[in-house]
Amino acid sequence: MTIHSCNGNFPTKGGFALAIAPTPQPPYYAVIFTSLRSDQDAEAYAQMAERMVQLAKQQPGFLGVESVRDAEGFGITVSYWDSPESIRRWKAHAAHKIAQEKGKNGWYEQFFTRVCLVERDYRWERNPDG
Amino acid sequence: MTIHSCNGNFPTKGGFALAIAPTPQPPYYAVIFTSLRSDQDAEAYAQMAERMVQLAKQQPGFLGVESVRDAEGFGITVSYWDSPESIRRWKAHAAHKIAQEKGKNGWYEQFFTRVCLVERDYRWERNPDG
Repeated sequence: MTIHSCNGNFPTKGGFALAIAPTPQPPYYAVIFTSLRSDQDAEAYAQMAERMVQLAKQQPGFLGVESVRDAEGFGITVSYWDSPESIRRWKAHAAHKIAQEKGKNGWYEQFFTRVCLVERDYRWERNPDG
Repeated sequence: MTIHSCNGNFPTKGGFALAIAPTPQPPYYAVIFTSLRSDQDAEAYAQMAERMVQLAKQQPGFLGVESVRDAEGFGITVSYWDSPESIRRWKAHAAHKIAQEKGKNGWYEQFFTRVCLVERDYRWERNPDG
């Protein structure tokens, strides 16, 4: 199995590697965070989002993150974790709690968080020679 | 529980409602499809993607879909289903199989599919009055 580093040969943008998270064999956990941004505070939001990724990467059990937001403000961020305990610890992290409050107080119109057990996965990439 | 229709009061773009999928109470299934597009065939790809969403919506057990792709071609699509059987049926659908082959034959640089059991979820939206 090829391990793809999040900082491999892909460009980065705003702290997120434009690459698929190098998760291990299932089972592991995924937290799907789908959100619609308001138009407030674009710069402050971007800074917070980047800080949250950096903090999440330091948490025990963090396996990777994938994130995309389009020009209309609709975004999906999926973070991967080794266990529900690691997810709970991240949720309780002080800085993360502050970001959650700010999210409800202006940055988001709506969001939805789904905690999932990844049962199976399948990866594919183009052969660089063809 | 408020049911949000995918075609509620949100704008749509390219066949995808810019809204969070109105899934029922857990448990249910999520298929996370993360991909990096090549620069080939933008128009043909967009048509295929829209067609796949329309077809998926007709499949038994389909619960909703959320999708974002950014300007660099990195995208996340999450479809929601009532069971692994519904996912398998969708995977085996002839038109979907054709799209998968086309994906490997030019449209994608890489992709990763994760099949997950959604164990719990939490939704929030801004109160329209404040």
